[in-house]
Amino acid sequence: MKIHKPSRHLFRYYDSLDEMGSRSSLSREVDVGNDHWGMNYHEAAIFLEEGENNEKFDSHPRHPAALPAYLLVHNNWYYGLDLIASLVLLALAVAEEPAVADFTLPVGIHGTLELMALGIITIELFLKLQWTGFSTIWKHKRTSIKAGALLIMACEALIVLIRQESHFRVTRALRPIFLVDTKVCGNVRRFIRQIFQSLPPILDMLGLLMFFVSSYALLGYYLFSDHHHNLYFKTLPDSFVSMFVLLTTANFPDVMMPSYASSKWNAIFFISYIGTVLYVLMNLMLAVVYETFTGIEKDKFRKLLLHKRKACKLAFPLLVSKQNPDGIKFKQFSGMMQYYAPRISNRDVVLIFRQLNASGSGSLTSEEFFGIYDAASLRWHLKDPPDPWFNAAWPPLRFVCRAARALVLWKYFEHIVYVLIIGNGVAMFIRIAQSAQSLEESATMFSNSWDTYLFLSIFLFEALIRVIAIGWTQYIGSGWNIFDLGVTLAALLGSLVLLFNPTFTVVVILRPLRLLRLFKLKKRYRDIFGTLVLLSPLMWSTAVVMLVMYYFFAIIGMELFASSSEALKNCCVNTTVEDFFKYSANGTTAIGYYYMNNFGNLLSSGVTLFELTVVNNWFIIMDAFAHVTNQYSRIFFMLFYLYTMVVLTIVVASVLEAFRFRIQYKRQTSKRDEEQMLLEEVRVEWNSLISQVQDSKYIDGLRTNFVPGGVTIYVGKRRRNREVLQRRMYMAEIEKWLVEDEVLDRGIDLREVAEGILDSRLRDSTA
Amino acid sequence: MKIHKPSRHLFRYYDSLDEMGSRSSLSREVDVGNDHWGMNYHEAAIFLEEGENNEKFDSHPRHPAALPAYLLVHNNWYYGLDLIASLVLLALAVAEEPAVADFTLPVGIHGTLELMALGIITIELFLKLQWTGFSTIWKHKRTSIKAGALLIMACEALIVLIRQESHFRVTRALRPIFLVDTKVCGNVRRFIRQIFQSLPPILDMLGLLMFFVSSYALLGYYLFSDHHHNLYFKTLPDSFVSMFVLLTTANFPDVMMPSYASSKWNAIFFISYIGTVLYVLMNLMLAVVYETFTGIEKDKFRKLLLHKRKACKLAFPLLVSKQNPDGIKFKQFSGMMQYYAPRISNRDVVLIFRQLNASGSGSLTSEEFFGIYDAASLRWHLKDPPDPWFNAAWPPLRFVCRAARALVLWKYFEHIVYVLIIGNGVAMFIRIAQSAQSLEESATMFSNSWDTYLFLSIFLFEALIRVIAIGWTQYIGSGWNIFDLGVTLAALLGSLVLLFNPTFTVVVILRPLRLLRLFKLKKRYRDIFGTLVLLSPLMWSTAVVMLVMYYFFAIIGMELFASSSEALKNCCVNTTVEDFFKYSANGTTAIGYYYMNNFGNLLSSGVTLFELTVVNNWFIIMDAFAHVTNQYSRIFFMLFYLYTMVVLTIVVASVLEAFRFRIQYKRQTSKRDEEQMLLEEVRVEWNSLISQVQDSKYIDGLRTNFVPGGVTIYVGKRRRNREVLQRRMYMAEIEKWLVEDEVLDRGIDLREVAEGILDSRLRDSTA
Repeated sequence: MKIHKPSRHLFRYYDSLDEMGSRSSLSREVDVGNDHWGMNYHEAAIFLEEGENNEKFDSHPRHPAALPAYLLVHNNWYYGLDLIASLVLLALAVAEEPAVADFTLPVGIHGTLELMALGIITIELFLKLQWTGFSTIWKHKRTSIKAGALLIMACEALIVLIRQESHFRVTRALRPIFLVDTKVCGNVRRFIRQIFQSLPPILDMLGLLMFFVSSYALLGYYLFSDHHHNLYFKTLPDSFVSMFVLLTTANFPDVMMPSYASSKWNAIFFISYIGTVLYVLMNLMLAVVYETFTGIEKDKFRKLLLHKRKACKLAFPLLVSKQNPDGIKFKQFSGMMQYYAPRISNRDVVLIFRQLNASGSGSLTSEEFFGIYDAASLRWHLKDPPDPWFNAAWPPLRFVCRAARALVLWKYFEHIVYVLIIGNGVAMFIRIAQSAQSLEESATMFSNSWDTYLFLSIFLFEALIRVIAIGWTQYIGSGWNIFDLGVTLAALLGSLVLLFNPTFTVVVILRPLRLLRLFKLKKRYRDIFGTLVLLSPLMWSTAVVMLVMYYFFAIIGMELFASSSEALKNCCVNTTVEDFFKYSANGTTAIGYYYMNNFGNLLSSGVTLFELTVVNNWFIIMDAFAHVTNQYSRIFFMLFYLYTMVVLTIVVASVLEAFRFRIQYKRQTSKRDEEQMLLEEVRVEWNSLISQVQDSKYIDGLRTNFVPGGVTIYVGKRRRNREVLQRRMYMAEIEKWLVEDEVLDRGIDLREVAEGILDSRLRDSTA
Repeated sequence: MKIHKPSRHLFRYYDSLDEMGSRSSLSREVDVGNDHWGMNYHEAAIFLEEGENNEKFDSHPRHPAALPAYLLVHNNWYYGLDLIASLVLLALAVAEEPAVADFTLPVGIHGTLELMALGIITIELFLKLQWTGFSTIWKHKRTSIKAGALLIMACEALIVLIRQESHFRVTRALRPIFLVDTKVCGNVRRFIRQIFQSLPPILDMLGLLMFFVSSYALLGYYLFSDHHHNLYFKTLPDSFVSMFVLLTTANFPDVMMPSYASSKWNAIFFISYIGTVLYVLMNLMLAVVYETFTGIEKDKFRKLLLHKRKACKLAFPLLVSKQNPDGIKFKQFSGMMQYYAPRISNRDVVLIFRQLNASGSGSLTSEEFFGIYDAASLRWHLKDPPDPWFNAAWPPLRFVCRAARALVLWKYFEHIVYVLIIGNGVAMFIRIAQSAQSLEESATMFSNSWDTYLFLSIFLFEALIRVIAIGWTQYIGSGWNIFDLGVTLAALLGSLVLLFNPTFTVVVILRPLRLLRLFKLKKRYRDIFGTLVLLSPLMWSTAVVMLVMYYFFAIIGMELFASSSEALKNCCVNTTVEDFFKYSANGTTAIGYYYMNNFGNLLSSGVTLFELTVVNNWFIIMDAFAHVTNQYSRIFFMLFYLYTMVVLTIVVASVLEAFRFRIQYKRQTSKRDEEQMLLEEVRVEWNSLISQVQDSKYIDGLRTNFVPGGVTIYVGKRRRNREVLQRRMYMAEIEKWLVEDEVLDRGIDLREVAEGILDSRLRDSTA
């Protein structure tokens, strides 16, 4: 493990601490007496933000003059502009030659748009360099790649504008760099890093795979190359390609058939190959990736946690006074919170402070302050909820509401709802079984008949009862309720649309969706849906990474193959894929549509790449392009296959990991444990509050939230996300990490620590 | 957890213990004074065997009269006959109509053979029922299925003989039952049980999958059924089949193409389907199965371990005398070992006893006796090995041998060998790159040129040096050495074959194999090969299960579809798979070979089923049979797909589990730890040996193995199999299991135990 070396900046900071106590490096530079707390709050908040966003502390503003630029860059408007500029840049590929039919723009317009977007990104980069220093271009890899890409693209855009014509612009494939570098893509960057970290084992396995592919290609060549009608093994490269494609099973059994026709025993060659390569080695590849991925995932969590702790450690000394260097008072805490989380109300700041201050001493120790990230994410409400919303209503209405509440709380209510859902399913089934004259009539019977409306109104009524019984806020607090209501409303809307436009049959899908609710009944399905929720951030990152790489390959594909799109029709005569490209103007054969899988424009390329991702029959597309352009075009397709294989293997590994995590977590934690873990209770006495806050104006603002003179109890609720669960799961490990971190941070000799612990144990046992 | 209730037999046993001390239930029945030790030894050995084979103790012989039958059944001849009969029965399918061309037998002969095989199995079953009691037929599920199958098959075989004609004999599909029931298939039975145990989660996931398949089928029907040229969504069943096949990606992108041709936006339908079903739900299915499988695997290990302990517990009281009821003396131990493991030499019995008797008290306690299974598997050799084999040789020869030894131990020796292997690879590469007139010439250049012989002789020389240096026994002790020598000899043989028969080009595969050795260099590859070794028992079981199920489906397929084999040629006109069955006598098109994928005979069926297992293009075969027979034949193919999916998912899960196990084991255990774990040292003093054995004849036999009057040290080596590693990995858990088992076994109240432990702890801390 490598030792964290305090950065130059931090050294400077420690110097300042020696001299002046609690003054920030920013305030020391301005050197104003009273104003320095403001600067301290600001810098502490910046530290905390850096900790949260996993940014390095050496990009911290070093001088008050850099602060305006820093604030400009760390601003939602900046983020938004950055995102829009990068998206515009990506979207240009739709309009540039070869463009999607309805979106073509003249060269002048898309060239100008490109220059504008690039200009915005350049200005933003310039702003950022203002406070990180221009040397970052050389030091920070991501920044230097970005700057390089900007330079090349600006030049190319200028050339396009001058020549009024697009040239071979394969560098457009690098445009996703700007998207990945925006703030919202933090998880995407982390996922890309995980992919790179998982690469070494994958490459190793590929090496082993390639050994088998080559050996079998060699053997196949010697066995089958002199067979008639066998086009798969004509030459050694043919043989290699056939075996490579067989690794993906895409050309099985076709590749076997000619040899099988000449002798049945030739099947052994193919069966042994598939058995070894596909069922053993490919599975081992997954196992290797899974093992690596699990390790990386834990390490990532560890690093994020330690980074946050480091941020707290750096922020802490800025918030203590010289008189009391070991504790943060409420005044400093609330001052810092104004910068760190300006949206959190005064009430919540009080509660967060109380929650952190477990000792009740009135000032936060360094250890207590470490909980700030967790505490700031709590959502607070009064422990004893106010009476149901209808308690102050008009008495007859109140009676109705009470009845609704009783109904919802009745133990058979859920059963009745499930029976109704099943009834809906049965009705759908009957409707499908009925014969109809036309498709429209059938769709109308399915989605627009009396039973549709009956069940829809019942479900709406159910939702209404629930809303009345527990109030709107609590109702939409549950994901399942939102799903129910959304699906019901969508189905209703669909039925109405069908009423006015009977050809719009796509809405039939909305009715069966309600049946999904039935899956909530069984524990295993709940586990599965729960895993999906845990996985959703990663799924998003995966989707973005896939899209970004699609864009990359699509641009390259378009530059290389767009001109060959028309040549695909009736191509590849006398090859194994001839039948798939047979085209005639008055209707092709059932399988002859493959000419459509081309790189004619961005959207076609996207679909073609998706087909390559699914792997089935991918070689047909590859063979055709190899035939109409040249054999080396196969490299493009093979690289794309390897890339998708890597990403998909990692996706499988991550799904496995998340599910296993969830199951083990559930096994360790009872329902009650979990409730307790997700809830924090804070008890506030009015008098202690006054002595703590010491600011009459502030106190006045709190009168509505706390009972003056009395006691108020609030409950803070955590969101049930992966991080919170992980923290609990890995508790023992976390303690180990913290000790390690402490040891490394202070440069302590591990042996000394161990001896110290031993000593104290011995002392305890003899006492 | 359920409480183990002692079986009726065991109660009877405990009764006997009360009355008579250490007499076996067998010996009590015969009631002979002196002979009862022999009977005790025998019964104890039977208990131990039952523990090892994971047989229930209630199938234990209850009466001495049953002993001959028991011994007959637990006999290698019996096992062999059983295995041969079941294999013959299976092989008959090759000769019965529809038979494989060259193996056809007249009805009379294969009918008689079948009756004979069935007769053997019936007699064996009868023997077994002799001592388990005939009621086992009703009680033991496996036996009752076997008896039922025997009855039906015997009747059918008779009918066939009488009519001299095969009828619709789908029950032949049940023949694998007899194979699975043989003794060698113990692991196969356990694997089948694991499959059944993994089924519930798989079925749950299938439910969710089917919901999506059905919903999308419905939507697809409404969206695309009125398109021209779109044959995939004509009717609702068509639509369902298309979506089911799309779940396997086999018909992608073909199924999308007609819709995509009519509007590009239809791609969204297919992309969203594949995204949801394939990339999310199928991965979750793997995750669910993996989690279940890991749980089952651990539980299996736990049960096997506890079963063995129970066997020891039952055997122990039979081996102690009334005078000393807490310890087994050596005399009794060696007596029992004569029955339990007659092949273990007297020397090893002494060593096993010594190794078990860790306390050195001279008699084994119950706890020490539990180690018997482990100790009996140790392989013993003297700690200080005798001098190298050549020490007594003729001096000049000795000098050569010493030089060889020095060379092998030289630190650069391995490097040189690797360089030579790489040189061999480079030479191969050059040979392949050279152009040749014909395939034979090319093969000769590759496998029969001067460089082939050069490298082969170098490698043979290397093997010779190694054998001289460390002796033959130690040389073949390493798997890698066997691989090296085997591959080299095979390549030499191949070259010679090519010399005499240049058309036999298949031998070219033998030369590159030697390169595999290079993969030993990197740790990750060693992990992978190590995992393969750990996995090999499971892989065998999987292979047998797959073959057995292939047989099952092949018989059904042959009975249903054998007659349609010829009809496949040029079938399916105007369907989507038309092109794949276009046949003309003078050469078909590149993809038109699918008519060969039929159920014409057992071997063709096997290949067809393998193609269905690989999944790619499986629907083409299904569609054709649905077309030439009827639509319901799809059920056969869909069920087979689901079955292979289940088995392959479990295979993936087991590979993952084994790899993860190995990696974690490696992480926990250092190389030195492992050495220590795999080796046991036993020190034997001659005098203590005499006092222990107390049998001068026995002692005389040991004179060659131990130094009379001195001290001899032996080392016992464990085989590094999964069980041994697992025992070490799960040490903490095992202790927990043992306590649980003990508690349940004795009917102890858990709380009392906990209080007891607490008490003793308190006492310790106050003392």
